[in-house]
Amino acid sequence: MADTEKSIVIFDTDPGIDDAMALLFLKAQASLKLAAITTVFGNAETDITTRNALYLTQRFGIDAPVYAGATRPLTINRRPAPAFIHGDDGLGDAGFTRSFSAQPSEGHAADRIVEIVRANPGKVTLLAVAPLTNLALALERAPDIAELVKGVVIMGGAFAWGGRRGNATPVAEANVHNDPHAADKVFTAAWPVTAIGLDVTSHCVASREDAEELAASGRAGRFLWDISRGYEALYQRRNQIDGCCLHDVAAAAYLVKPELFTLRSGPVRVVTEGIAIGQSIQKLDGHTFGPNAWDGHPSKLVAAEADYAGIVENYKSAIRSLG
Amino acid sequence: MADTEKSIVIFDTDPGIDDAMALLFLKAQASLKLAAITTVFGNAETDITTRNALYLTQRFGIDAPVYAGATRPLTINRRPAPAFIHGDDGLGDAGFTRSFSAQPSEGHAADRIVEIVRANPGKVTLLAVAPLTNLALALERAPDIAELVKGVVIMGGAFAWGGRRGNATPVAEANVHNDPHAADKVFTAAWPVTAIGLDVTSHCVASREDAEELAASGRAGRFLWDISRGYEALYQRRNQIDGCCLHDVAAAAYLVKPELFTLRSGPVRVVTEGIAIGQSIQKLDGHTFGPNAWDGHPSKLVAAEADYAGIVENYKSAIRSLG
Repeated sequence: MADTEKSIVIFDTDPGIDDAMALLFLKAQASLKLAAITTVFGNAETDITTRNALYLTQRFGIDAPVYAGATRPLTINRRPAPAFIHGDDGLGDAGFTRSFSAQPSEGHAADRIVEIVRANPGKVTLLAVAPLTNLALALERAPDIAELVKGVVIMGGAFAWGGRRGNATPVAEANVHNDPHAADKVFTAAWPVTAIGLDVTSHCVASREDAEELAASGRAGRFLWDISRGYEALYQRRNQIDGCCLHDVAAAAYLVKPELFTLRSGPVRVVTEGIAIGQSIQKLDGHTFGPNAWDGHPSKLVAAEADYAGIVENYKSAIRSLG
Repeated sequence: MADTEKSIVIFDTDPGIDDAMALLFLKAQASLKLAAITTVFGNAETDITTRNALYLTQRFGIDAPVYAGATRPLTINRRPAPAFIHGDDGLGDAGFTRSFSAQPSEGHAADRIVEIVRANPGKVTLLAVAPLTNLALALERAPDIAELVKGVVIMGGAFAWGGRRGNATPVAEANVHNDPHAADKVFTAAWPVTAIGLDVTSHCVASREDAEELAASGRAGRFLWDISRGYEALYQRRNQIDGCCLHDVAAAAYLVKPELFTLRSGPVRVVTEGIAIGQSIQKLDGHTFGPNAWDGHPSKLVAAEADYAGIVENYKSAIRSLG
């Protein structure tokens, strides 16, 4: 496929184990052109997620600049990084980045997002699988990008459509919880957003057998096996899941296989205070209440269900194809 | 059954069409002794709900005093009464109470709750199917009642276990939304609470055919038919449900048929500010998060599922038995 026919993607990420899985998944997609990787705090601090993004691009020959972004949320204090999930190094403490160092490309992630979107009107999809701070900053600096993007696809939120609720609190998903004010800005802006929340991503499980099979299939699969041993053990221990949830991969899969997802339409708001802080709430179109906080905000799409096995199969094919 | 063997119930209510259904359901239960009916604002203002409770006791020979309670929430402003659901008169504007007037028994509902609980330690169940203001006031005035009640059963909350969310906002159920501060006090107090939320009650639907059958069965069923014509039409129009949800009946049914319900255990908090105000959130026992607002609060039971058809059948039998 000629580059000019490809969909342009900016991957906003905080690698992060499932971020690494998603990045390798994206690398395998012939129909996508990765224009930039923008980093943010979340699974680890921004210096670490940036280092990891650089490491991944170099190790796997991913031809995209890495731009470092926000180091803290817009309004609330930075919450502690979840080292118990992603390791102190953000990649499972498997030791890969111990002696690695490299500098990101020049410029703030938010500014580069604005530039790339403006240079490619109607063609850029922002795929955000981390706290939404960079996207909110980009919107603040250049509100015109809302009309210029092709779309925004987010791994984030827990919408409880399938009864599934939060992982940061009983009702809040971590990406949104990490910067609720940014998420509310992104969800209420006048751009086309599709959110793939925990409701769906929690059901996208690559089993231990899947991971073993991929580990035997080549160096990409082997690398993902190595970084995900503790991650897998945590799912086993905390959620009684025998495998890894492909949270960020699920959102990436939406770019190439939207037909795998069932979506619901309605405005989305994020709770920015109190015990439900970080909760993402969709009011479905056609549901009527008295005057409320969703009035006047544009509808967004939220995944309600998906072909979970289909997503896992697409992931496995992609990783296998990398050798 | 001798009165001394019966379970003692105080029915805290805001009649209200489904409140009337629940009261007649309670009247038919030989194993229950209704010690008092306490009224509060909600489906209508307190003067109207009190008049309706008095009307119902007189018309159907229910031998229990009616005590009027709170006329407004603890902290927030009173929200407008939902006349479009229950009618201006709280009983479907069927005209029954137009020329009716009577005085409630002396004393504030909250004080009477305290007295009855103290006089019958370990024996009284509070069945609350309205905003929880009276219960919160009783707790404030006499914290000792928390250890003296047999239990507290609530129709309230929308816990999203079945994907079902709010009726007042996308996440808030009306009873809790009407006085979130009272609900948070009731849910966090050290007494045994079981909540039957919208998740369950929305599935307990008496069909139009059920209502017709009961209307033909006697004067209780006929009365409920007469007051519920607009209520049923509203469900049809707004929810595409061909019948009436037996919200308050479901909670009453728990008193006599707890085996019809599947419950989940964990502390419950209520959101008291922001866009999610009035949302009830249960953190399931065993689910771990970082330090959070549920820490240190006693677990409560929340209905997750029920034998919906069984609840409707129990309701029908009860109303038929009244003739």
